[in-house]
Amino acid sequence: MSPGKQAGTLYGVGVGPGDPELMTLKAVRLLGRAQVVAYPAPEEGESLARSIAQSHIPPGCAEIALRLPFDPNRSSDAAFAAGAADVAAHLAAGRDVVCLCAGDPMLYGSFIALSARLDGRFAIKIVPGVSSLTASAAVLGQALAARDDTLTVIPATRPAADIERLVLGADSAAIVKLGRHVAKVARVLERLGLAERARYVERVGLPGERVRTLAEAVAEGAPYFAMILVHRRGEAWKA
Amino acid sequence: MSPGKQAGTLYGVGVGPGDPELMTLKAVRLLGRAQVVAYPAPEEGESLARSIAQSHIPPGCAEIALRLPFDPNRSSDAAFAAGAADVAAHLAAGRDVVCLCAGDPMLYGSFIALSARLDGRFAIKIVPGVSSLTASAAVLGQALAARDDTLTVIPATRPAADIERLVLGADSAAIVKLGRHVAKVARVLERLGLAERARYVERVGLPGERVRTLAEAVAEGAPYFAMILVHRRGEAWKA
Repeated sequence: MSPGKQAGTLYGVGVGPGDPELMTLKAVRLLGRAQVVAYPAPEEGESLARSIAQSHIPPGCAEIALRLPFDPNRSSDAAFAAGAADVAAHLAAGRDVVCLCAGDPMLYGSFIALSARLDGRFAIKIVPGVSSLTASAAVLGQALAARDDTLTVIPATRPAADIERLVLGADSAAIVKLGRHVAKVARVLERLGLAERARYVERVGLPGERVRTLAEAVAEGAPYFAMILVHRRGEAWKA
Repeated sequence: MSPGKQAGTLYGVGVGPGDPELMTLKAVRLLGRAQVVAYPAPEEGESLARSIAQSHIPPGCAEIALRLPFDPNRSSDAAFAAGAADVAAHLAAGRDVVCLCAGDPMLYGSFIALSARLDGRFAIKIVPGVSSLTASAAVLGQALAARDDTLTVIPATRPAADIERLVLGADSAAIVKLGRHVAKVARVLERLGLAERARYVERVGLPGERVRTLAEAVAEGAPYFAMILVHRRGEAWKA
């Protein structure tokens, strides 16, 4: 950074789960004046966060795609290090960077790992977004939690024993990131006598959004962006 | 309803935790064309949901305040029944009703109890909003959950033994609705050796938003809209 020049600020901006209308006014305002945007993306193909926000990206804005391996068995360290270096170069030159995050930046967002690499060196501000958690509850018409209910959010990647213990311990559970783990989760819910109460939705707010029965999802397969909501007291709070 | 006249739709619309800029584009659009708005309110005084959204309420729009007792020891059944009847009259006359909900309608929202009284008789659509959960994480710069973390949301009104069990069982915990329960929660976290890691914020997005230490909140008292985030692995994911 040249002397006297103030570093830019990194904004982690939630753009909601998929429907561009679920962006906040603040996200739209920050994006509209952005000189540099960044977003996670697969190694090949389109970024979900960018596709949600694309109509608000100003012409001439510089773009940084953080190309992350989708395979959880491959390390994303190198990709994050390269992306953080690109972002840091803009910040050091005095330009703000708006990092677009599908859903909310602080709830299973790759922004968490990016910002951990830049924290302490640059100012970071976070703009929360609508999460796929509440968006899924809206589509299903199913309360996540009411009154003094407890709610546990469980990635389906966890072992079956963890999922069983956590579902048993909470009033309400949201089991996220189903993908190839859907059959394992269904077996846990059957064992607990909760399969009938489980409600399933996939690709909320995206093309291909679908509500199916859990049995259908097990038989036909579930995408990564799929979620089960289950409330131990059943349908009492259904909207 | 007169013959041939189509009933209106009830919209449960999240308006976010407090900052009017955290309203979604969809909430603003629906509100801008509304003929009737409803919102929860205390028995005397201003509605939080209305105050967040007020600049978008069109002139001449009818308003229904659901005046709810704040005291959890008093039943809110009569208030909900009266509010549901007012809302139903507009719906039956063919008018849509936009019910404003602070935060998200499906996460500890009074909309859940309202809609349970109207479900089956009228069409209900839910528009999710930014919850105080993710907004608090944004203010604190603290991840709610990353990678395969589990997250449990716990109302502070629950007994200390429940809170202890649930905090121990999850990777990350959000303890909400602190109010007069803050000292009880602090004792639980001290017993678990987690008090140093707990981060506290109150009135997120509202006038008077404050980050304090847990010790300060215990000494000086906490409002109802206050939250503790605690991650068992500590600060690793701090943004």
